[in-house]
Amino acid sequence: MNREDLYRQIQAKRSMLCVGLDVDYAKMPECIRNLAESGELMFQGQEFRGTARSIVEFNKAIVDATAPHCIAYKPNLAFYECYGIDGMRALDATVDYIRSRYPEIFLIADAKRGDIGNTAKMYARAFFETMDFDAVTVAPYMGADSVTPFLAYKDRWTIVLALTSNASAAQFQMAEKDGRPLYRAVMEEMMGISNPDNMMFVVGATKADKLAEIRSFCPDNFLLVPGVGAQGGSAEEVMQYGANDKGGLLINSSRGILYADNTRDFASVAAEKAAATASF
Amino acid sequence: MNREDLYRQIQAKRSMLCVGLDVDYAKMPECIRNLAESGELMFQGQEFRGTARSIVEFNKAIVDATAPHCIAYKPNLAFYECYGIDGMRALDATVDYIRSRYPEIFLIADAKRGDIGNTAKMYARAFFETMDFDAVTVAPYMGADSVTPFLAYKDRWTIVLALTSNASAAQFQMAEKDGRPLYRAVMEEMMGISNPDNMMFVVGATKADKLAEIRSFCPDNFLLVPGVGAQGGSAEEVMQYGANDKGGLLINSSRGILYADNTRDFASVAAEKAAATASF
Repeated sequence: MNREDLYRQIQAKRSMLCVGLDVDYAKMPECIRNLAESGELMFQGQEFRGTARSIVEFNKAIVDATAPHCIAYKPNLAFYECYGIDGMRALDATVDYIRSRYPEIFLIADAKRGDIGNTAKMYARAFFETMDFDAVTVAPYMGADSVTPFLAYKDRWTIVLALTSNASAAQFQMAEKDGRPLYRAVMEEMMGISNPDNMMFVVGATKADKLAEIRSFCPDNFLLVPGVGAQGGSAEEVMQYGANDKGGLLINSSRGILYADNTRDFASVAAEKAAATASF
Repeated sequence: MNREDLYRQIQAKRSMLCVGLDVDYAKMPECIRNLAESGELMFQGQEFRGTARSIVEFNKAIVDATAPHCIAYKPNLAFYECYGIDGMRALDATVDYIRSRYPEIFLIADAKRGDIGNTAKMYARAFFETMDFDAVTVAPYMGADSVTPFLAYKDRWTIVLALTSNASAAQFQMAEKDGRPLYRAVMEEMMGISNPDNMMFVVGATKADKLAEIRSFCPDNFLLVPGVGAQGGSAEEVMQYGANDKGGLLINSSRGILYADNTRDFASVAAEKAAATASF
């Protein structure tokens, strides 16, 4: 998906919301957890049972309810890998389902991979060929050659961690390189090997005061902004300081939408929360 | 596995070698690639066919040949994820095989994960509970709270990236924090939240001149040293400058052992290479 397609979707839905599909069996509503005991489900041409069945039924319900109100989904790989092969099958089926039903949606693998060149090439193949994601998040610690293999794919996106939303983000991201904080050096040097049509950056919403400064040296790239909702950031502030003339923002909320309600109404409550988050 | 067990194995085998199981179908000997066309294989109680069959047969042959000459195996997740579910099933079966046949071996998931606390907890579960690895490699960019969830597991290890072996390693790892290069700040601050019984560091062998300096402030922790062999580092130099009184080193070679030969003799050539690498 290219930048124009993404911008058109933002305008059509009047939303910058990305829903983080961080599935956690323990937090799912009872009616979904119970499905793990209900035999098998055929979904996207495959059989699912046990926890895997709960995951695909939960994702299907959340996606069907929230797709009109968001422009992107972002499964975090950790929440599937922890269920082993079953979890990865559930992720594949979820991706296939979104692709077939909601082809306009931008799909992000929140994987935070980062490795030497020949290995990064295999990760790029995993997320852009074996799986069909539009984008993958990448950690910059190993430098440019751990990022370039992802950039070889046309109309696919590399989303590099810059300034994250967690409590210890500043510990190393505020180290100094050539008179700049490290996160800025990461952004400027990554901008030097890419363009706003194939690279985005992760900038935590809990640092909304930093967004205006970031836009001063990075006006064009999309920013993926986590930390809204459960982590305490304000989507309104993010849009005020972070938006640009192509939208420029994917504002992520995960737990605040997925687990807003734990009754049989969980999907409609998720839809309400989604409609009220990062819309304009 | 604890530090004493690891040291005993180093003494018994007189080796500090870790073999990187970076499976790449395109580089495998023809006799192994052909197995993809040879119907199904039962392995560790599961059926494998196609590329997955080649992967498990290759790993089994390499492990059986090299286990007497190494103390650890380190599958890099990228090389399994790129084959999708089949690749992950092959990884699981490989881990089960090593666990059942060679229980003395230290098993490292080279995954380079790194995410916020609640997500890191899921990755720790994935590698230490769902899969049965002794250790996982972790990227430090997001700071201490992305590492601590891994430390909650007794006799499991977190291996934090410090100074890597790739060409662009210095780009961000030599940024400055409080008068120190970033990689040193990472090591010293991670040492502050852990101990030498649950944390190791990745230090690239292509920086062997740095090893003596690293031992001046980090005398006790095991170092996982990639970059020997295909990447150009010298195992002898690494042992000269990096060993300590508990061994202190896991010296990794991947391509230099796995793909040393592409005939039917590949496994015995791999064994010879393994016996000649990082032994003493």
